[in-house]
Amino acid sequence: MAEPDVTPDRIMQVGMGFWASKTLLSAVELGLFTELAKGPLSLADLTERLRLHPRSARDFLDALVALDMLTRAGERYANAPETDLFLDKAKPSYVGGILEMANARLYRFWGSLTEALRTGRQQNESKTGEDFFGALYANPARLESFLKAMTGLSLGAARAIAAKFPWQEYRTFVDIGAAQGGVAVEIALAHEHLTGGGMDLPVVQPIFESYVRTKGLAGRLRFHPGDFFKDELPHADVLIMGHILHDWNLEEKKRLLEKALRALPSGGALIVHEAIIDDARSQNVFGLLMSLNMLIETPGGFDFTGGDCIGWMREVGFARTRVEPLVGPDSMVVGIK
Amino acid sequence: MAEPDVTPDRIMQVGMGFWASKTLLSAVELGLFTELAKGPLSLADLTERLRLHPRSARDFLDALVALDMLTRAGERYANAPETDLFLDKAKPSYVGGILEMANARLYRFWGSLTEALRTGRQQNESKTGEDFFGALYANPARLESFLKAMTGLSLGAARAIAAKFPWQEYRTFVDIGAAQGGVAVEIALAHEHLTGGGMDLPVVQPIFESYVRTKGLAGRLRFHPGDFFKDELPHADVLIMGHILHDWNLEEKKRLLEKALRALPSGGALIVHEAIIDDARSQNVFGLLMSLNMLIETPGGFDFTGGDCIGWMREVGFARTRVEPLVGPDSMVVGIK
Repeated sequence: MAEPDVTPDRIMQVGMGFWASKTLLSAVELGLFTELAKGPLSLADLTERLRLHPRSARDFLDALVALDMLTRAGERYANAPETDLFLDKAKPSYVGGILEMANARLYRFWGSLTEALRTGRQQNESKTGEDFFGALYANPARLESFLKAMTGLSLGAARAIAAKFPWQEYRTFVDIGAAQGGVAVEIALAHEHLTGGGMDLPVVQPIFESYVRTKGLAGRLRFHPGDFFKDELPHADVLIMGHILHDWNLEEKKRLLEKALRALPSGGALIVHEAIIDDARSQNVFGLLMSLNMLIETPGGFDFTGGDCIGWMREVGFARTRVEPLVGPDSMVVGIK
Repeated sequence: MAEPDVTPDRIMQVGMGFWASKTLLSAVELGLFTELAKGPLSLADLTERLRLHPRSARDFLDALVALDMLTRAGERYANAPETDLFLDKAKPSYVGGILEMANARLYRFWGSLTEALRTGRQQNESKTGEDFFGALYANPARLESFLKAMTGLSLGAARAIAAKFPWQEYRTFVDIGAAQGGVAVEIALAHEHLTGGGMDLPVVQPIFESYVRTKGLAGRLRFHPGDFFKDELPHADVLIMGHILHDWNLEEKKRLLEKALRALPSGGALIVHEAIIDDARSQNVFGLLMSLNMLIETPGGFDFTGGDCIGWMREVGFARTRVEPLVGPDSMVVGIK
């Protein structure tokens, strides 16, 4: 019946992939990795500290061992190197905020993917009148923890931008939609001659300024409060937009590119970086799935290829353009005025 | 901040794995692979035939290309070899029934994994008084399609059991919980000297008999209607229990093993096969996650290691035991009376 070399294994692995995914998301929700970052623990101790039920604790922990998220030596469980660095809330490198958000929101909303595919309509709180981001922005502690997660996640891309872009040709830069300032800080740390800053909604200002201060960069990086649709962008030699354009529809994307062009001097550069889809649209799984996430999350947002972005940049008036890979699924598209 | 060689990539890939998973599940729900099995189609044709929205169709299809579930040549999408064989409803090798079930039920129930971990309680229809399996068993067409999916899924293990077990030493066998008869058929096809059959609930009888007839085995395989907890098991040289034991709690597991022992002649064999967890409980991801699925789905079920199963077999009175790997995550545990 079946060809001997064609098996349903990969289909089953992807199709049932939500099992592994939800197991890790629940581990983050329960604070497992934060607890183990203090030191290895036995099954009995972990069961008690995380208030797990004895029926489920061992399978849960051993599944995470098999997924290489934990290790087990003798009777004691410990974090794997990655989870110790990135999923311990006490470390600045914590990226669990995005997984907490996925666990609390996206997992459920993606359950309505078929409806989104049929209707083209978003499937998040907007359907029921809840307002996740409104609530997030109203709670400074939660907002800071969320923006911190963004910093952890964009660290690799930030360092690649610091290394690959010819910063020696420029003196000033502003990161548009800067959040905590993760990208701006990495660039400023790598290039002492630069001054710059970040633009974001006013509510973000204390979070940005506190992070920049802890990095000793308060003298070189300043915050520009504003709404990038309502306000003009700050002037600088280089403007950066990371994971911004994909949130918006085509007309809005072009409007943001035009605003960037207006704010740049002749010869200035715009760096657009996110999970840029490969031009053949057949390789960057994460970028393509992120675009479906924009379907779930926004009225008109979508991810795009390097070719798409270059086309829009040319259309609004950028003189030269190029695409460069950064790390993992991320690339940057550079437009020169 | 981060060690250069430790990245959050794998954490993000597993944590956001529900994106790829749900995308494939929605594709099965929409009948995409069944449609493309008839021939390649353009984006426009697929959008119309699956009633997709233009905003979402292209990202959805291209994400499936990047996941190697589809191919795209020029403007036309086609099935990958695996999806053409295993996800086309018109082929007997279709395994999509299990993914349809995962999409309609499990994805949602796994959303309550944290509650299951905290309480040790199942999280399926039992919480709301729905009865999925009752409804399934009441609808012969749906039941047949579901049991067909089980056959497709167990085909690899069935062939491995047919090849690896010393069938020349035995004359008769019965598969307990036989469903459509997939395992019994593969064994009978491979070993002409054997006669046997399958035991399952009476409602399964016409589905079993029809499948066995299409395979030309009606003279050698017969159906034994019964409930393996209420009724004694049929006598045979070899009894088989595939994906049965994990549904039940420890006391029930041992009761089924005792019943098998009673039904076997001296020297007879019981073959237990499923996603047997490795003895170190650190490798078989699928088996460990399947055990969490038993937490979601059953009041007391759990998966187990080869060592666990051997211990129970010895305890109820089997004389000799051994574990042998089959295919993928599956192994068989053999007990000799």
